[in-house]
Amino acid sequence: MRDAQSRGESLIGATAHVTLEPCSHHGRTPPCCDALIAARVARVVVATTDPNPRVAGQGLERLRAAGIQVDLLPTDHPAAIRSRELNIGFFSRMIRGTPWVRMKIAASLDGITALPNGQSQWITGEAAREDGHLWRARACAVLTGAGTVLEDDPRLDARLPGLARQPHLAVIDSRLDTPPTARLFEPPYGGLPRRLWFFHAEAGSPQADKLRQRGADTILMPGANGKVDLGATMRELGRREVNELHVEAGAKLNASLLREGWVDELLVYLAPRLLGQGAGMAPFGPLERLADGTPLRWLDTQALGTDLRLRARIDGRDAFLTNR
Amino acid sequence: MRDAQSRGESLIGATAHVTLEPCSHHGRTPPCCDALIAARVARVVVATTDPNPRVAGQGLERLRAAGIQVDLLPTDHPAAIRSRELNIGFFSRMIRGTPWVRMKIAASLDGITALPNGQSQWITGEAAREDGHLWRARACAVLTGAGTVLEDDPRLDARLPGLARQPHLAVIDSRLDTPPTARLFEPPYGGLPRRLWFFHAEAGSPQADKLRQRGADTILMPGANGKVDLGATMRELGRREVNELHVEAGAKLNASLLREGWVDELLVYLAPRLLGQGAGMAPFGPLERLADGTPLRWLDTQALGTDLRLRARIDGRDAFLTNR
Repeated sequence: MRDAQSRGESLIGATAHVTLEPCSHHGRTPPCCDALIAARVARVVVATTDPNPRVAGQGLERLRAAGIQVDLLPTDHPAAIRSRELNIGFFSRMIRGTPWVRMKIAASLDGITALPNGQSQWITGEAAREDGHLWRARACAVLTGAGTVLEDDPRLDARLPGLARQPHLAVIDSRLDTPPTARLFEPPYGGLPRRLWFFHAEAGSPQADKLRQRGADTILMPGANGKVDLGATMRELGRREVNELHVEAGAKLNASLLREGWVDELLVYLAPRLLGQGAGMAPFGPLERLADGTPLRWLDTQALGTDLRLRARIDGRDAFLTNR
Repeated sequence: MRDAQSRGESLIGATAHVTLEPCSHHGRTPPCCDALIAARVARVVVATTDPNPRVAGQGLERLRAAGIQVDLLPTDHPAAIRSRELNIGFFSRMIRGTPWVRMKIAASLDGITALPNGQSQWITGEAAREDGHLWRARACAVLTGAGTVLEDDPRLDARLPGLARQPHLAVIDSRLDTPPTARLFEPPYGGLPRRLWFFHAEAGSPQADKLRQRGADTILMPGANGKVDLGATMRELGRREVNELHVEAGAKLNASLLREGWVDELLVYLAPRLLGQGAGMAPFGPLERLADGTPLRWLDTQALGTDLRLRARIDGRDAFLTNR
């Protein structure tokens, strides 16, 4: 609307197409409904209603009360489906209270993510890594574990020209083993700010002060066996307004997240290589029956340079998008 | 030619297109050159010369001597490439003396081929298994190991309606552990005959007689550490006129074949499932460096029912097709 107005175009009598029901409340911005009403548009086509209980149909009502024609697309309309996919993290947080969790894995064709000696950089090629940065940038936050920090000392920022914001970084670090000299404390790409959140399991750690001095939040989230409570962590990330969470962790944290049912989607890059032995993708289990495996639904397959990208969703995990 | 003649069509003056140089010698059939000359065709377009030293250009010469115009396609002509792929096993046997080895693997997305308790049937779905039977049928022989025979008791025949012949079955069975009651001794699908070859490593095994009574050949091929010599086995399979060898074995034999460089191509079916822990695809190694991994070249990717099929070739293994 601002763009049209800046070009001198009138919106009076226009039709507005929106992916999400315009809000009727003051959030970070004033109510979108008021802006549409003030602009005197004649019709608003809405792809999905807002799952936010503070909106939930009130936006549509407010527009109608102002004499605007409101057309809500049917649930199975292609644009409605695409809109839900576009906002899947927001829908997840509003409906489930936790982020949409996308786990990124880079492996050889035989499913090896690191050699027995720990080597894992780089299994996949440049095009796959670049694509990975696009997915990081799309997320509100990246999640990793202390093991990956100690092993690879990654920055885990999104390194893309023209980036408008950096995803925050959450680290599952039960004993706060991350050294204050880790590269993740360096200013992220583009000088864009991000928050650093360390989830730990032991109160009164002397490490906490050092990490806080480096600008991080330390969040005590104790679970069983001296580990971080992953469910509580996910709910806390939801409270911190993380819609999409991009996981880049090692086999152990991947396994824990899958075992406890905190993964929604997989983003797997397969390199044209066999590595034989080493760490797997997410060694949960051992299972007793094949039928107990985690069922997936393929989303798409794409060649990226010499690698293949396979996207899959844990079967049924997106049911909240339509079952409401 | 027989088909045309049976329909009363004359071949006089016709152009014949052939994938492989017509032979000039008596093999299983009389020389193809003689048949073309007798039919009085005017021109023969040949996609590839025959790597068989008993033919090797002599077929082309013989046709030309009979006044037939012979056009040999250039090496990089699409039809020449397709013809070499069609006959890749024959080329392999003629040039290398060993079969073209295609390894079939069914795994979950995370590369697990069997649960820790051994369960592996069935990881993939019906469409993938049916496709697997097509690849078995295309091969001259199927190769497996005693471990798979003892674990799964498979028949390893090609089960497809209208099948014209069965691939033979080779078993790597160092100590001849296969029981004479194994299902692989049952008549294969369609009542089509096949040969059973057991490669073993110890002379004078009392088991050998029992397997021979069941119609099998037992072939002593001792290697290091009480194991079968895989290289000698491949050369023996070449001598037995196996062009394409279809491997369906467990993780251990797969690892040995890869470690010793006897695999040319991979046929991988990935099921939409995560299984966490279990046997990998081919746990050779451990490697010290990622660069030491076995480099692959993707051939194609295809959806089969709910599974994905990924075909890949060990990089450079098909160089013999063009470097001659």
